Amino acid sequence: MTANASNMSLSQCTIRVYYEDTDLGGVVYYANYLKFFERARTEWLRELGIENLRLLQDEKKAFVVTQCHIKYLQAAKMDDNLIATVDSCTAARASATLKQTIYRNGAAICIATVDIAFINLQTGRPARLPLEIAASKI
Amino acid sequence: MTANASNMSLSQCTIRVYYEDTDLGGVVYYANYLKFFERARTEWLRELGIENLRLLQDEKKAFVVTQCHIKYLQAAKMDDNLIATVDSCTAARASATLKQTIYRNGAAICIATVDIAFINLQTGRPARLPLEIAASKI
Amino acid sequence: MTANASNMSLSQCTIRVYYEDTDLGGVVYYANYLKFFERARTEWLRELGIENLRLLQDEKKAFVVTQCHIKYLQAAKMDDNLIATVDSCTAARASATLKQTIYRNGAAICIATVDIAFINLQTGRPARLPLEIAASKI
Amino acid sequence: MTANASNMSLSQCTIRVYYEDTDLGGVVYYANYLKFFERARTEWLRELGIENLRLLQDEKKAFVVTQCHIKYLQAAKMDDNLIATVDSCTAARASATLKQTIYRNGAAICIATVDIAFINLQTGRPARLPLEIAASKI
Repeated sequence: MTANASNMSLSQCTIRVYYEDTDLGGVVYYANYLKFFERARTEWLRELGIENLRLLQDEKKAFVVTQCHIKYLQAAKMDDNLIATVDSCTAARASATLKQTIYRNGAAICIATVDIAFINLQTGRPARLPLEIAASKI
Repeated sequence: MTANASNMSLSQCTIRVYYEDTDLGGVVYYANYLKFFERARTEWLRELGIENLRLLQDEKKAFVVTQCHIKYLQAAKMDDNLIATVDSCTAARASATLKQTIYRNGAAICIATVDIAFINLQTGRPARLPLEIAASKI
Repeated sequence: MTANASNMSLSQCTIRVYYEDTDLGGVVYYANYLKFFERARTEWLRELGIENLRLLQDEKKAFVVTQCHIKYLQAAKMDDNLIATVDSCTAARASATLKQTIYRNGAAICIATVDIAFINLQTGRPARLPLEIAASKI
Repeated sequence: MTANASNMSLSQCTIRVYYEDTDLGGVVYYANYLKFFERARTEWLRELGIENLRLLQDEKKAFVVTQCHIKYLQAAKMDDNLIATVDSCTAARASATLKQTIYRNGAAICIATVDIAFINLQTGRPARLPLEIAASKI
């Protein structure tokens, strides 16, 4: 991973590719990149002091993905060591747009734009984003 | 599927194998057979009039798997049309042992013995099995 | 499902939501919609006489997703009976853009635009799409 | 994790529980523990100098699970930090039996006995286990 990539991201996590992630084409199944992006978002939230489980149990609130746009540039393979990042966050009152990347050896192999909304699960209505997120945007 | 197999099961459901189920070895990933067995259990419960979601929401009760023993006899492959069955149910007060099979072209390719417990999620304690299950055993 | 939806799609398949598809938010995990879209594409190809496994084994060619854009409109839930469709296909020489939808009770709950490329796995280069696909576009 | 557990295992890897691993019951879906056990086996093989991908590509050989017996003692939850181990390996000529455990805070929450066979994918016949495995048994 180049210094460049790590310097410019809000958060990153490492991902090892296992058998479970692959399909018979010999590469990572296309839906599984969304799991990797979600792991990076979870670690980013954790670093901000936000725990999904606590939000869910204590406040009955959760982040939901409302839209995502994924470009698959190169295929990830078994045994790869990947880095998944949250690159930027543009936050509104109850939603945010994140840019995310998956890197292998410093090269971006998959990029995504992910729109998330924060909702109150009891009412089904939008909830104000945690303050930590608004404060985190680049 | 032979008449024999279908005659002797309590319930069965058909399963088509898709890309998502395979791994780079070219066959169904070993954990995914547990998904197939669980689909068969869900359909068996549905036929008995038991809906997992209603139990969870209305009674705060759920079935949990406490033990399973799986024998992999032959590998399922992409595009296979499989049949997953619940063959028998031996029920106790708050738990049951199920025999299950996955068939391809009438031949068993995977067999399992699955122990399930019925629990009250609020107390964490065993709950009495729905009456429909006790009545269903062969 | 309304007559409208089924009339306007190239192909459709039914999808039952099981435990395996859900997450602790109580709804279908966002990556799993991509599995549902892929099942619909596989059934569409099958109806055209194209088998992924044969292409892979005999011709060493495969479809790969190069880009996808997903809008999540409503959450799918445990026990839902969904319909996933391929609505349209705009084909070029070695790639195609598909519009796809997931319906519940006739209402679209998730829509996607999926770009696929057809590649020769031995050379890594684009391969000419099977003729059946060019002929299938609306 | 107690010193005891780590001292007695052949290999171990850490596992963070993410949304993707959970189901609507709020805990880790029962099939996903098999993914965790498989990650631990992959890391154990890697430490022995055995790479699954190289075996598959260069020698057309692979490990397949022929049987497994899993006991679910306590449910893993979102955000848990787990440790998955390979505790022991009893090797025969072309197969081995592994004992594996998943720990949370030093307590075993899931244990498995996993039988693996080593096969030649071109002939479908058993292949002699890599020497490193025979040498690794406790």
